This record gives sequence, structure tokens and C-alpha cells, in this order.
Amino acid sequence: MTDDSGTTADDSDDRTADWTAPAREVRATARGHLDSDEPAVLATVVAVDGRAYRRPGAKMVVAPGSGGVGSVTAGCLTDSLARLAGDVLADDAARLERFDLREDDAWGLGVGCDGLVDVLLEPLGESHRPVFASADELDGGRIAAVVVESDDERLDVGERWTDDGGDAADDLPPDVAAAVPEDVDRTTTVRVETGGGSVRLFVERVTPPPRLVVVGSNADVRPVVDLARSAGFRVTVVGFRGGRATAERFPRADRVVSTSPRDLRDAVDFESSDSAVLMTHNFVDDRLALGEVLATPVGYVGVMGPPDRFERLRDALASDGIEIGEGDRERIYAPVGLDLGGGSPYQVAQSVVAEVLAVRNGRDGGHLRSSSEPIHSRDE
Amino acid sequence: MTDDSGTTADDSDDRTADWTAPAREVRATARGHLDSDEPAVLATVVAVDGRAYRRPGAKMVVAPGSGGVGSVTAGCLTDSLARLAGDVLADDAARLERFDLREDDAWGLGVGCDGLVDVLLEPLGESHRPVFASADELDGGRIAAVVVESDDERLDVGERWTDDGGDAADDLPPDVAAAVPEDVDRTTTVRVETGGGSVRLFVERVTPPPRLVVVGSNADVRPVVDLARSAGFRVTVVGFRGGRATAERFPRADRVVSTSPRDLRDAVDFESSDSAVLMTHNFVDDRLALGEVLATPVGYVGVMGPPDRFERLRDALASDGIEIGEGDRERIYAPVGLDLGGGSPYQVAQSVVAEVLAVRNGRDGGHLRSSSEPIHSRDE
Repeated sequence: MTDDSGTTADDSDDRTADWTAPAREVRATARGHLDSDEPAVLATVVAVDGRAYRRPGAKMVVAPGSGGVGSVTAGCLTDSLARLAGDVLADDAARLERFDLREDDAWGLGVGCDGLVDVLLEPLGESHRPVFASADELDGGRIAAVVVESDDERLDVGERWTDDGGDAADDLPPDVAAAVPEDVDRTTTVRVETGGGSVRLFVERVTPPPRLVVVGSNADVRPVVDLARSAGFRVTVVGFRGGRATAERFPRADRVVSTSPRDLRDAVDFESSDSAVLMTHNFVDDRLALGEVLATPVGYVGVMGPPDRFERLRDALASDGIEIGEGDRERIYAPVGLDLGGGSPYQVAQSVVAEVLAVRNGRDGGHLRSSSEPIHSRDE
Repeated sequence: MTDDSGTTADDSDDRTADWTAPAREVRATARGHLDSDEPAVLATVVAVDGRAYRRPGAKMVVAPGSGGVGSVTAGCLTDSLARLAGDVLADDAARLERFDLREDDAWGLGVGCDGLVDVLLEPLGESHRPVFASADELDGGRIAAVVVESDDERLDVGERWTDDGGDAADDLPPDVAAAVPEDVDRTTTVRVETGGGSVRLFVERVTPPPRLVVVGSNADVRPVVDLARSAGFRVTVVGFRGGRATAERFPRADRVVSTSPRDLRDAVDFESSDSAVLMTHNFVDDRLALGEVLATPVGYVGVMGPPDRFERLRDALASDGIEIGEGDRERIYAPVGLDLGGGSPYQVAQSVVAEVLAVRNGRDGGHLRSSSEPIHSRDE
């Protein structure tokens, strides 16, 4: 029997200024403004040089009197953005602003903050609906394109298009829309030579926030939920022991479910983009849960506890007729977490959430100073 | 000119139940009970088998009516501990309790939580003062020993001794005190054959919470302070740009300082146990700060920004006559952080704080599943 203890997402009405708000809260804020028809400006990073703090696609929503939610720089443009946002609303027209925040060390002035950052400022409107659709509506994701530069009379900066087939963002002429890639990893920029001139498009893949499913209901689940939320995840908590998995005990979780281990797949529809962490501290529960999640496409399975405990779990599953093959070993992380050496509840949670983040982003969690890859993926 | 914007440590009076409280809050809670002469019980993990959630030295303070602060298990003993704490206060006597929380998978009952955990329960008293001294008083650290088992009539469970030379904890006869190691890495257990029988001592090194000094005052500092505090660090924020480094902007920092880069060493006395992260987003400020911190024994220096920016910093320092040698390269982490792939303010902060934790604990931040070392250091 599955019992949904109720959703507890608390971000739909939070419009107070929050520079540290994760992407999902920025999206919820934008949806809120659209739904209530309140004026607001969307600021999107569309291009950067290598030194900028945020990468293309980062967004901030600025509403008069409410402050900004989200970030497009390391925090040094807040006043400028507020002023520009006022101009954008007054003009009711989108504009591309280039901020040269490069550090001018040649003169020793060092007034720089970030680098070169191109920010598109747009009055928030119906054409943004597809970009800020809720997680359920987004399903697998969609492609959104917007004009950031244009010397073609037909097209103004800010004209939008998405591939969802709706009308909300369908402003590009067919020849320009045809130039939008069918898929992008994250973001890209496309220059299109049209009959009437040339147009630069910023294209992004809009995806729902990633989900972390935490299986367990002990007190050590709370710091994991807390840190995962801050890192931008939607979080579902699944408890097996009657009465312990409630929204009151886990207020920061988006969804809290009480069920039995054998009904886990009925309670949660695990997808490949999901991550699961098993931390019931109960061998039988972890054993049953592991068998259940391995029968789904879930992309990451973290199992708390030392290596020998995982070996016993594996043996127990084998006696149930469930073999863990090489492919499964790839997605199973046991012991869960990065090697940080800490043992307190928050230190353990940081180890776990850091690993979930790294694996989701295709990174290996080692020191950046030893890595030869760029810190962030950039435009393709 | 250095201006201390004031200390903001808010944990001295926080006695509400908090299972996730980091060690420093547990200590502050204990100090608070001692200062106000309120009855409370100290629970300390003194021995575990390999599967326990917390390791030896973990502490929890339980006061009647206030709930518990800190954790000794994954959260499955709360009621038992509260009841036992009542008994300990009623008897005014320390006792050693063994909790067998092993998972009984042979019977499929799986009622286990953790493993075998020995917890020493003591009425909180003056003999604990040296153990809960404030960070300033602790200086480099001290050794504390307590009797956990005894069949020697001279010694009761709970008798304490420390090496600070004071009277507050000086109950061991000289022959037993002589058996206490002069130093331990973290914790150890010593069995002493005395004239009157044998005694088992739990010995721990009591150290101040580690400190993280964050140099910078942009908005991206706040998530770093937040996560570092949760992970148990004392945090000092240093700002160079007038008016930005205030306690109001950084309420979770223990100390906030406004100074000029050249006065950094006057404002902050960097020790080898400290970690510093340079994130001013200003080349000149980072350059001067880097030169300053490298002239101290600070144990970790994280520098935000891509590798080429660090190379320019290094060249700039060289032109100032400051060479960065091999030894310095060891303690400099540039770009700062573990490779988690995220770019939002909290994701960047998680990358930074995870690395500071790992380096401080002598770990490498890679996946635990790939490591052959134990997850936690255990008793020696």
C-alpha cells in the first residue's frame, strides 16, 4: 500500500530576492509572475568568455520591488541589472547587454568581477511559458530558441520559438526555425544567414530539474534532502517503516511516500535521469529496495554502508535470483559518496550529494586542480 | 585598518533538539548547560564495530525536556537514550551501555540500525569543562581520558583526566594517568592493569573546530559559509571592498572582517590547521591576498577561477618577488574545488566545501566505491 504524505514543494510563491536560488526556484518564480500577470524581466546569460562565473543558460528573474531571484554573475551587477530591467519594462522590448567585467590587471585597477558576459534581458511574457513549464509538463525536455541579435527586419531581439508545437513561442519564420538544431546537450549559439540579413540565435535544452529519490526515513535523511534541494534537485523521500516518512519530518522534500519495499516501483516511477540513494540502515529493506530499483532504468544507485555489507546484499539478491552484472555495477555506488573523510550527519550528506552531482554531470569528483577538462561545459 | 564587524556565532544558546548539529554546536550546548548549572547527560561513542554510523568520539548532549543535540547513531536510539539519560541523572552515576543494533538478516528480521555501539553516558559536570572549552581556550588541543570499564575499586566509570594541568578533570591515580598516551590522532582505547584490577580508558584528542577563512564579499560567499558551517567549520569572512563585509550580509559567519589586502595577516592569524579560499573575483585583491597567505603556515589555499587565471596570478606574484615553489603548489588548489560539474552558487559552494573537507581529512575526494581505505579512520 502506498501512501503519499503529500507534496511539500514550498517554492511556488517565494518571490523574495534570492541570489542563491537554484534553477528550479527561478523557474517557479517566473511561472508565478506569469500566472499572476505581474511585470518582470528575465535575464539570461547567452554567451561568456572563459572566466565568467555563470555559464550560458543561467537565469535571473527581476521584478520591480521584489529583488532578483537567481544569478547571472558572481553578484557584482545587481544594481545595473535592476536599472536595466526597469528600462526593459518601460520599453517593453528585449535587449542584449554586454557586460565587460574583465579584470584590468595591466593597470592594477582590478575592478573586474567576472569576464565578458552577454545577458539577454526580456520582458517576461507568454512566449516564455514553454521555457518555464513545470517538471511534469516538461517530460523529457524541449528545445527553446531566442533571437539575441538581428539585422533582419522580420525579426526582433527576443523573438522566441520552441519545439513543443504550441503557440506560446512560435515567432520564427520557417527558414530560421529550420536552422535550430534538433537537439543540444545544454546550450549553443547559431548564426543564420536569412534572405533579409543575419540573425544570431541562442538555443537551449530545457529540462526538468533532476530528481533524487532517498530511500530511508531516519534522521540522517534530512541533511541529504537539505543539500540536494540546495543543489537544485527535486527530492522524493521514501520510507518503509510506518509513520516515519511524513512531510512534517522531511519538510524540504518535494514528495514524501510511505510504502512497502515490494511496492517501491509502484510508488516511484524511476527514470534513467533519476538518482536513488538507499539509506534505510535496515538490511532487509535495503535488500528489497535494491532489487526493486535495479529492475528500473534509474541512472545512479548509491548504497550506504561499508563494502562488506554491499557484498552481503549482493549475495542475498543472488539467492533471490537477482544477479548484479557488470552493467549494474557501473551504476551502483557502494559505499555511497565521495571520499571526504567526515562522519557527522552533514559531512556524510555532503559526501553523498557531491557524488550524486558529479555522476549526474559526468564528472569524477577528484580535485579540479588535477583535471585537464574545463570546469564547466561551454557552448558547443 | 582592520575593522571587525563583530562576531555572529549564534550557537551558544541554541539548546533545542538537533540531531544534525555539528560537533561545535554540541560543545556549545554542553558549555551552556555547565554555565547555567542545568542537568544534562553527555553520551559519547567509545567503541564501535565496523558498521556503525558514527565513530568513536561522537557526542550527544541530552537534557530533560530539551531533546538531544548531536548524534551517536543514525537516529534509531533516540527514545532509548532519553530514557537512559533520565536514569543516569537519577543515579548521578556514569554508565557504559552497549547497543547491539546489528542487522539480523539471518532471520530476515532486519531490525538492525547500525552495528555494535558502546556509548558512555555521564552526568554533565565540572570534570567536562576541559573537554568543552571554547576554541580560544583549546589552543592546539588537549588529551582527555575517561574510565569506561573498571574492576579496580579506586576507579569508577566516568572518572576523568585531561592534560591541561587544571583541577577540573584530574581523577586518575598517577599510575593510571601515566598510561594515557601523550598524543593520539583522534581516539584510542587503553587497557591498564593496575594494582587493584584492570581499567579500560577511552582517550580522545580534543581540538577546536577547524576554521575556514573565506576571502571575498560577493553574494557567492554566502553558500560557502552556509555549507562550511553545516560541515562543522568555524568561518571567518574577510572583505576588502568597503562596506560589503558585514555581519548582516553574512549572518552565518562566526567572524566578519573588513580590511585591506596588505593587512590581511594582521587581521587574521593563519595557522596550519586553517583553510583559506580566495574568491574576491578581483585580480588585484586575489593577487595581494595570495601573497599574504603564502607567507603564513595556512594549510590549504583554494583559489577560484580557471587555471590560466592562476598562472597570471603566479606571474604577477613573481614580478613582486614572490616565488611559488613546489611546497606551496602542494597546498594551493587552483581551480578550487572538486570536479562536480555544477555551476549554480550552491553547486559551486558544494564543490569548494567538499574539497576543503577532503583535504583537511587527508582524503582525495574520489568515489568511495573505488577506495580501498576504510570510510572512517577508526580507533588506533
